Amino acid sequence: MAPGGERPLRELAERDGIEIIDQRALPHRLTWGALRDAEAVADAIAQMWLRGAPLIGAAAAYGLALALRRDAGDAGLALAAARLAATRPTAVNLAWALGRVRRRVQPLPPAERAAAAWAEAGRIAEEDVATNGAIGEHGLVLLREIAARRPGRPLRVLTHCNAGWLATVGWGTATAPIYKAHAAGLPIEVWVDETRPRNQGASLTAWELARAGVPHRLVADNAGGHLMQRGEVDLVIVGCDRVAANGDVCNKIGTYLKALAARDNGVPFYVAMPLSTFDPGLPGGDATPIEERSAREVTHIAGLAEDGRIVEVALAPEGTDAANPAFDVTPARLVSGLVTERGVFAANAQALGALAGARTGEAT
Amino acid sequence: MAPGGERPLRELAERDGIEIIDQRALPHRLTWGALRDAEAVADAIAQMWLRGAPLIGAAAAYGLALALRRDAGDAGLALAAARLAATRPTAVNLAWALGRVRRRVQPLPPAERAAAAWAEAGRIAEEDVATNGAIGEHGLVLLREIAARRPGRPLRVLTHCNAGWLATVGWGTATAPIYKAHAAGLPIEVWVDETRPRNQGASLTAWELARAGVPHRLVADNAGGHLMQRGEVDLVIVGCDRVAANGDVCNKIGTYLKALAARDNGVPFYVAMPLSTFDPGLPGGDATPIEERSAREVTHIAGLAEDGRIVEVALAPEGTDAANPAFDVTPARLVSGLVTERGVFAANAQALGALAGARTGEAT
Repeated sequence: MAPGGERPLRELAERDGIEIIDQRALPHRLTWGALRDAEAVADAIAQMWLRGAPLIGAAAAYGLALALRRDAGDAGLALAAARLAATRPTAVNLAWALGRVRRRVQPLPPAERAAAAWAEAGRIAEEDVATNGAIGEHGLVLLREIAARRPGRPLRVLTHCNAGWLATVGWGTATAPIYKAHAAGLPIEVWVDETRPRNQGASLTAWELARAGVPHRLVADNAGGHLMQRGEVDLVIVGCDRVAANGDVCNKIGTYLKALAARDNGVPFYVAMPLSTFDPGLPGGDATPIEERSAREVTHIAGLAEDGRIVEVALAPEGTDAANPAFDVTPARLVSGLVTERGVFAANAQALGALAGARTGEAT
Repeated sequence: MAPGGERPLRELAERDGIEIIDQRALPHRLTWGALRDAEAVADAIAQMWLRGAPLIGAAAAYGLALALRRDAGDAGLALAAARLAATRPTAVNLAWALGRVRRRVQPLPPAERAAAAWAEAGRIAEEDVATNGAIGEHGLVLLREIAARRPGRPLRVLTHCNAGWLATVGWGTATAPIYKAHAAGLPIEVWVDETRPRNQGASLTAWELARAGVPHRLVADNAGGHLMQRGEVDLVIVGCDRVAANGDVCNKIGTYLKALAARDNGVPFYVAMPLSTFDPGLPGGDATPIEERSAREVTHIAGLAEDGRIVEVALAPEGTDAANPAFDVTPARLVSGLVTERGVFAANAQALGALAGARTGEAT
């Protein structure tokens, strides 16, 4: 199946909930889980059964619709939205998608709200697929240009974390240009950062790329700078969780280090950014709320043992404390461009200001 | 016990070999292994029972002495030295220590070579402890200066990999100033990079610091840039495997990324460098041979399971290929200073040229 056709989230046939891939079991097992109420959706987001800014936005929208089936009053609406928004503080899509559903249903009589919210969640999901497809097309132009400057060998792209179809409703953001390039016959190879501590690169991006037949090699997060020094990386492309008004990009922890290395070695550094990720209310990245996750994500890790069981093992001495900031901010000055569904833009206030009015769904 | 008194290598009582900590079982078990011939020493170095540039240098010197007990002829000497030198290509101490023993025994009649080599290995080991103690004293002055500019809270130091006493014969290089500061009552906290893929930070540095009672927190390698952006790091100090004539520093993969982040945030970046790590024959870091290790170190990891067994688990989809460069080169321009046993020096050709003649043991 083409990557664009793969979905990590789908409505249940009875439309009494959604079904999502439980990403915690990947890459070792492909497991789907049904979420039939808002509480289940919130728990799944908080526990990272699903992750990725666009995907949690769409899932939360469905969660809000499910909550309204039980309590469609104003207080119930506010409470459910707050509960869902609190699951992950950094990605702006979550607040954006919940706000969009709220604005859609608020003027309606309570009896009509649940159905309207469900339909709006469906639109958010479908628009996400279309948005990412468009990011893929604009990114493909970019990839072709860079490949043309390096003829005779495959284009080498480095990506961090998972901004693939597993992080969205379809296509992925950073992976959309890669999938489009591969489908178009442009020779491409991907360096996959493993992305500690949760290893989304090793467990999700590597799995996606293998499934799609895209050549790739896994590397420790530490290796990217060295690869760039040796001329082994033609461009970096990553996703994002929130882009500030000045173009600063908040993304998975470690992104900033790759952006520094890219700049130091003259390697283009692009951010795939659906406009829903833009936060015009945030003047600069410094003010981005950075989620601090549990120390255990650093001190322990789960993997597939020889006997076929998924086993969690300790990596550090017993009792070791760890800090675990989940995101960092890459200053706009290090970003070569933002690849959006409307085209490629500079990461600065002027370009983003012009785009701000164009945010999908803003007017509805 | 004071960290300076801890040793990961000691001569066996019968002097028929050496005993070393098998670091592969740390931090979960403290296991010593006896190495009674050169082959055992070479295997232990290649398989990383022991690692760290100064420690493998000393161990290889003992290995050469053991080889000479079996065959003290010129051909045997050359063969054993070549076998030991080939175990790890990057650290220059290995070649340095082997060269020092060879120069010491070459002029002697074969019957005297083994004993002379054993004694020379012992001197290399003892000098390493003294060298690192001196690095600690010079580094302590530096730490006091930086702490004085940030009164009212503990000094926060970030380190990468393990350049602790486990990587040397005693004290460690990057950790020596930390241990001296802690012993002197200077409040200090250490950010410990886990150091993928082999996790020397999580498994060795965290273990050492806990054993010595030095406050520390483990972080994913990805986190350091963010911590520096937020003002949470007062200085970075790392060890090194080889320093080129121009001051470029080869150290564990990922060091370069931390140096970039330090520069971008105005954080001092120091390298603890015993003079035995200097390679005047290498004009710049670009030419450093970078060891490429097995993909399995990236795709699999061992840790302590709940049932007390050490279990290896797969982290990536079956069949995933990985690249695994073990070191990278930090350009001299990013290095604030080199902390040597002779004092703190600038990382440039002029300062290093003056030091070159002073390399320990060069004249013997």
